[in-house]
Formats: sequence, structure tokens, C-alpha cells
Amino acid sequence: MLTYPLDGRGDEPLYRYLYDCIRHDIVAGALAPETKLPSKRAFARNMGVSTITVENAYSQLVAEGYIYSAPQKGFYVADAPKLLEDSHLRMHPIDVGRLPHPEDVRSRFAVEPPPSSDQHLLVDFSSNQTDPDNFPFSTWARLMRRVIAEDRDVLMANSPAGGILELRQAICDHLHEFRGMSVAPEQVIVGAGTEYLYGLLLQLLGRDGVYAVEDPGYSKISKVYEGNGVVCRHIPLDAQGIGIASLAESGADIVHISPSHHYPTGIAMPISRRYELMAWAASSASRYIIEDDYDSEFRLAGRPIPSLQSIDGAGKVIYLNTFTKSLASTIRISYLVLPPALLERFDREMGFYACTVSNFEQCTLARFITQGYFEKHINRMRRHYRMLRDELLASIEASPLASKVTITEEGAGLHFLMRIDTGMPDEVLVRRARAQGVRISCLSDYQHHPDGRGEHVLVVNYSGIPAGSVEEAVACLARACGCPTR
Amino acid sequence: MLTYPLDGRGDEPLYRYLYDCIRHDIVAGALAPETKLPSKRAFARNMGVSTITVENAYSQLVAEGYIYSAPQKGFYVADAPKLLEDSHLRMHPIDVGRLPHPEDVRSRFAVEPPPSSDQHLLVDFSSNQTDPDNFPFSTWARLMRRVIAEDRDVLMANSPAGGILELRQAICDHLHEFRGMSVAPEQVIVGAGTEYLYGLLLQLLGRDGVYAVEDPGYSKISKVYEGNGVVCRHIPLDAQGIGIASLAESGADIVHISPSHHYPTGIAMPISRRYELMAWAASSASRYIIEDDYDSEFRLAGRPIPSLQSIDGAGKVIYLNTFTKSLASTIRISYLVLPPALLERFDREMGFYACTVSNFEQCTLARFITQGYFEKHINRMRRHYRMLRDELLASIEASPLASKVTITEEGAGLHFLMRIDTGMPDEVLVRRARAQGVRISCLSDYQHHPDGRGEHVLVVNYSGIPAGSVEEAVACLARACGCPTR
Repeated sequence: MLTYPLDGRGDEPLYRYLYDCIRHDIVAGALAPETKLPSKRAFARNMGVSTITVENAYSQLVAEGYIYSAPQKGFYVADAPKLLEDSHLRMHPIDVGRLPHPEDVRSRFAVEPPPSSDQHLLVDFSSNQTDPDNFPFSTWARLMRRVIAEDRDVLMANSPAGGILELRQAICDHLHEFRGMSVAPEQVIVGAGTEYLYGLLLQLLGRDGVYAVEDPGYSKISKVYEGNGVVCRHIPLDAQGIGIASLAESGADIVHISPSHHYPTGIAMPISRRYELMAWAASSASRYIIEDDYDSEFRLAGRPIPSLQSIDGAGKVIYLNTFTKSLASTIRISYLVLPPALLERFDREMGFYACTVSNFEQCTLARFITQGYFEKHINRMRRHYRMLRDELLASIEASPLASKVTITEEGAGLHFLMRIDTGMPDEVLVRRARAQGVRISCLSDYQHHPDGRGEHVLVVNYSGIPAGSVEEAVACLARACGCPTR
Repeated sequence: MLTYPLDGRGDEPLYRYLYDCIRHDIVAGALAPETKLPSKRAFARNMGVSTITVENAYSQLVAEGYIYSAPQKGFYVADAPKLLEDSHLRMHPIDVGRLPHPEDVRSRFAVEPPPSSDQHLLVDFSSNQTDPDNFPFSTWARLMRRVIAEDRDVLMANSPAGGILELRQAICDHLHEFRGMSVAPEQVIVGAGTEYLYGLLLQLLGRDGVYAVEDPGYSKISKVYEGNGVVCRHIPLDAQGIGIASLAESGADIVHISPSHHYPTGIAMPISRRYELMAWAASSASRYIIEDDYDSEFRLAGRPIPSLQSIDGAGKVIYLNTFTKSLASTIRISYLVLPPALLERFDREMGFYACTVSNFEQCTLARFITQGYFEKHINRMRRHYRMLRDELLASIEASPLASKVTITEEGAGLHFLMRIDTGMPDEVLVRRARAQGVRISCLSDYQHHPDGRGEHVLVVNYSGIPAGSVEEAVACLARACGCPTR
């Protein structure tokens, strides 16, 4: 009868040891397919263990399919092992004790050196990351605590596909107050970041239509569309924004724009162009405008530019905004406002989706908005960014750069354009700046069809500059541009 | 010269009042296109306000495109209004004061009655929702507090597309310990729920291939695939799981299965079928297996069934698991484990994506796993579910249902099948149960090609049954099935 030495088992549980031994013999072929195993009782007596131990070992082998049980007859070896001979599969039945350690597996992968080992970086003008010191940690933590103490049932209940109604209502109130928009909470669809929502819109609007984006523009938008397999046209901008004639010629059905503050040019689309765009959309049932209002909170002068959505009587505008700009890029909450016809389609075809944002963060954000903290935070950030911008502009003005640059600054937040009077190609400029510890990007990086007009124009994102680094950053930039050092 | 009565302005700021008046006259046509506006100084003197007030009003009108400024000449009305005549657009320039209140907008939408107004619901056997009382709120809240106090820089730094390395490492350690898998953190891709990850996989594997799913199966899987526009085949199961011959005939490239515990049949695929499946995948470069291991933590008897991934020497298995089952359905964290070739493709083509899970929850979960709370939680939940299952089975055994039902229960977690000896069609059964306060679903609901074999079989999900409701729920079920009441 089958026997295994019990002293070989180390500190494994007995049943697990028996299981290992039998499985090993099956895999190695020592126990051939259709071999009858001893009965549980006989095997237990032979091994000097309890019947329950054998039963547990057999059950696990049955569950994994190494043996099978024939009613009234007993246990037999299944005929898996013949497949093991198929060598190109290189099967290796698992054995936790003998597994490679994850560290060893890890060494198989070419791991990128972590950014910290990178060349010294003083300031990153190419990143839209926010300064961590500005996040309202203590308020957020307090609200999260309250939510956990008071909202347990809401936290654990699956929310509708569009998100928790309380948050959607808070977003509506904010849009009414701040953007002059009248929106019902049902129209608001909350999701884990704008890139996710772009994908959701593709599913809602269909993949067969042609999508138009702005050129220059934020390249991730077309990357997401094209990565999802839809046809994407890059429409050139003029001084008022996207050109309507080119748009009409492109055959596009959907146009994705940021009319209040185009990235990276800063253009705010004037009212006349807006009406032309609305007329374009209204002339065909399949046409829609995606209004990407990603940083309207940060217009630093005057009032916010009214949204396209607020003049849309025809139900043609899908409004899109995010808290990743206004709160923190690492809190993934964005939202859509759907016009009625699309809302109906969403509920019918996509209502089965689970909302991608955790209830904990939805509830916390709802309180953050409702209790007035969001408005306070935005006001504080506008003051902060206005000071940062003023300091940066003054510092450029006072530096040797002043005579070599022209700045286009639309009073709108977080970035501006700086044209440099230089013969250096952009890649040389970028490399020289990087050697000085400053990372920059150029307008030409955002052009799908580079036409030369984007050359020698830096896109200066200043939201993440650490306080106190402005002067040094400008000096480094000046050196990179070949200005004499003082 | 242009004049407006100042006493009409209410409590609006002066500049805003001037802006409103001028915009109104432009929109109404009282100020024709190309009309020259008075100079700032003259207008200010005329109105008895400061020049800065006029300047602010003009700036906002310029920013929005109602007027334009000609250098050295002054301000002119832009020619937008002609577009207003295009009546089918029904333009309505916004005016916050006169906006419809969001409540009024809301009434335009047909709002579903909230579930609370629904018929009395005692127990929902059709839902996989977990009982809120089981979530470790206080531990989670404490860890979140610590994270906010100690990890601020990590919380605010954009994570790689696959997630924060600390969490991915914690997941690897967990998989090594619990599933016998040797995986590098770089292979782990964290995302906001499995549905999101299905979509990510479509993008990674391409939309041109044919996708195969199990029939019966979890219908959301094919809904997501089909909603994203790919061809989906429903492959029938036999007693060992998905049929290899049907799979081969289907022309599928990708197969999506749950080999450790199929939903809803509970089948654990035996080792022989696993090898056949691996052989199928290995025979073509474009073939991959998506192993959906959604509830392997909750095998209530014996050890977990080893994953397919752990016997995959050929890099053909994409492992997928979620914390929505093991922690809470409302915390949206799931993950993929990619084989090396796909990882390389992901980094190259999709590395630009932002991770869809907030850093706050990634960091909290990383600590939750690393500090041993996740293992404790799972052990506690297994005990809880085992008791619940035993109580439910005992209660059925003791009820009049006992003589009318056959239960298929694979020692695997959170649901089982119950075949009822009845002539009632499934929809009658469901309606009668609902009238008794019990919501149930039937195996036939999960069949893409209903073949009669799924008739009269209830899928009993017991994870969300409130403690103390078991006996009453069984009595209601018995009445629904036409058993005599005691």
C-alpha cells in the first residue's frame, strides 16, 4: 500500500504533506492514470494518521482535479499527466516552499531607474502637477473621519453608475453658483479621471464616428481616442480657436475642445465662434461638442468665461470637468454633464456599470463642496497662483531674458506661452534647459502637424513651482537661452 | 454717449452691472456690430464711476468675445449677434440671477423612484453586495489617518500607470503567500474595478480578435466587451468547465474564464482541463487566457485551488483579481498581473495613462495588506461566510423545501445552486419569491443560449444576508415554491 515517510514533512500540516506527496507521485508518473488509491480508512491506518487527515488530502486533490471519486468505488488517479509531456508548455506545478522569491522574479524585468536618480531637477515647467503643500490635508482627513463615522450605510451601498446622488447634487450646486449652469444631478456622471471618461464617451457616442481634436492640443486626448481605435482628425486653430471651415471639411461628428482656456495656447473662444460652433453641431443629429472645461476655476482675472453648455439650447454639448486640477491630480474624480438625449442612452446602455470612484472619496468630496471648503480652496489657490504668476513675470522682466522673449498671457490660469528670440532648435533649447536643472516643453510638442509657428515657444506651466524657486529657475532659463549671466 | 441708470443695479458689483448692460444691448441688437464704444475715461466720467470699473467691464466683454479692442483706436462691438437670428439654436445668454433653479431643471428628468419605496425586501439572494457591518471601518480609518500624516509626498505625486509601487509590492507578497504565485510588482496593474480593467485589456489585446466567455456566465463580462465593440462568443460549459473543442471551433483568440470557481455554477476546473486550455493558448501567438480569480479568497473548505497563472510557463495567462469582493464592493480597486510580453506592450503603448485609483486609497490598502489586516479580514470573513452557509443549508434541510430541492455546493464561497422540483416557469418562481420579500435569480438568467438545463435552478448568493434573517428567508422561499406552510 501507498506509504510516505512521516519524518519528511517538516512543519507542514499532515494533510497538506500527504497531498503534496500524492500529487508529486501523480505528476512524476509514479502513480499512473486510473490507479485506484487506498480507501481513506485503510490508508489512514497504514500511515498512522486520522481518517480526517486523509479525507482532507483527498478532498483537495479532488478539488484540483488530480484524482476523482467514483461513487461506491473509491478514489482514482485522473489522467492529467499525459499532458505534461507537452514540453513547450514548461509546466511547473506550484509548490509554495520551492517557489522563486518575488525578488528573483522581479530581477527578470528591466526596471526603469526611479526618477530620483535622475539628473538634478530644480523646476519642472512641463508638468501640471500641483504643489503638495497646497492640498487641504487636515480638512480632508477630518471630513473623511466624519463620513466613516456617520455614513456607513451609504459607504457600503453600491452607487448608481453615475455616482452617489449627494455628490452629483453638490456638483450641480457648484456649477450653478460658479459657472452659471443649470443642471440636474441625474445629468452628472462621475468617473475616475478624464481619461476614463473619454473612453466612456466613446462607448456612448460610438466608435464609428470621426472625432476631431484641436491642433495644437493636449496630446493625451487624441492618444486615448486613437488607442481605443477611433478615427481622429487634428483641426488647426486660428486666433479664435478651432476653425469651423476645417472642422466642417474634416467630416468629424464629434469635436473635443476647451473653449474657455485652450491648452496650451490659452485662447478663450469668443462668443461669435461659439455660436458658429453651435450652429455646426445643430445641423446634424449625430454631431456633438465635448466641452473640456479642465481649468476654468483658475481664470486669474475677471469672472470665469461662461461655458458653452450654458448657451446650449439644442442639447449638443457634453460638459466635462475634473477635480484633478482644482484639488489634486492624485485624487481621481472627474465628471460629465450629459444632455438629455445622451443621458437617456447612458441609462439604457451603460447603467449597468459600477461607478469607478470609491464611495469613501465621493462622500468626502460631497461634504467638501457642500460645506464651502471647495470654494475656499479655489479662492486660496487663485490667490496663490496669481502671486506665483506675478512673481514669475516680474522675475523674467528683471532678468536678461526680458529683451529676448514675448509673453502671451491671457489672464487665465496655470500656464502661459513665452516666445524666445533665438536660432536654437527646440530640442537644443530643451536639452540646455535640462542641463541647467529646468524641464520645459515647447509649443511644437503639442502640434500634430508642426508648421514652424510653434518653434521657439515655451509652454510655461507654473502650478507646481515650489515657493522660493522662481528667481533661480528664471536665471537657469536665461542661461539655457544663451543670455549673458550676471 | 452710452448711459445706463445706476439705480437699476441692485447689489451687483458696479463693473458686473456695466458688463451686463452692454452685453444685453449687444445681444438685443441695440449696439450694432462694429459700433465704437466710448473710451474708458470718457465713459467713466459720463457714468460717474472710476476708470478701473469700466476697464473691468470691458475686459470681461473682450475675454468673452462680445467686443474687441483695436490697438490705438478703442473698443468695438464684435459681430456675433447676427448668429442669434438662427432660431433653431434657441440661444439664451446666461444670467445667473435669472437662471432656472437646478430643482426646476431636475423636474424635467424622469427620475426613477428610489429603491426604498420598492416593495418590502427581506433578503436579496440575487445580489453579491456584502454586509456593511463586516467592513473593518475603524482599522481603515486609522490607516487612512496615518497615511495622511506620514505619506503626504507619496499622496500628491502622480503614480505610474500601474499604480503605486508599494501597493503593487504588497499585492505580490499577498499572491505569493496566498495563491502560490511568483510575480514582480511591475507585472501588477492596479485599476478602478474589474469592468475598467476589462476595457484596458481590450485596448492592450486589440479589438480585432474574437473574445470567448463562458455560457452560463457573469453577463457583465460580455456586456463590457460587446459595449466596446468587439466580437464575443459564448462557449458552453461541461462538468469540467469551458469546452475546449467548442472554444477551438469558435475562432476565439482570447478566452475569459474563472477556473477556480465559476460563477454561477461553482465549477472548479480540474487540472487536466487546465492543461488542455494551456495547450490551446500555447498553439498560437495571438491567444491569451484571462483568468478571472474574483473570489478565490472565499473557498470555504480546504486550500485555495492553485491559479492557472501559477502553472503558466508560456506567458499566456493574464491574471485578474479584485478587492471589491474581499473588502467592499464600493472600494473600487482591482488588478491585473500581466505576462512579460504584454507588460512590455502596456508600458510602451499605455504607460501614459494615469492610474484610476486615488493615491489615498492605494496607500491605505498597501498598509492594510502589509500590516496583516487583510489576511485577518479574509480569515474572519471566511468564518463568517462558513457559518452563514451552514446555517442556511441547515435551515433548508429542516424546512419543507428539503424534499423539493437538490443543492450543488462546491465548498466554494458565497453562492450555490439549488435545483427545485417544480413545474413553475422561472419567471413565476421569481415573482412569487419577490411577493414574499425575497429577491432571487435563476441559472437561466446567466445563460446566453438557454437550453432548458438552467430551468428551476436558483443561484443563491448568501454573502449579503443580514444575520438573523436566514430562517425567515428560507420560510419565504418555501412558500414561493409552493411548499405547505407549517
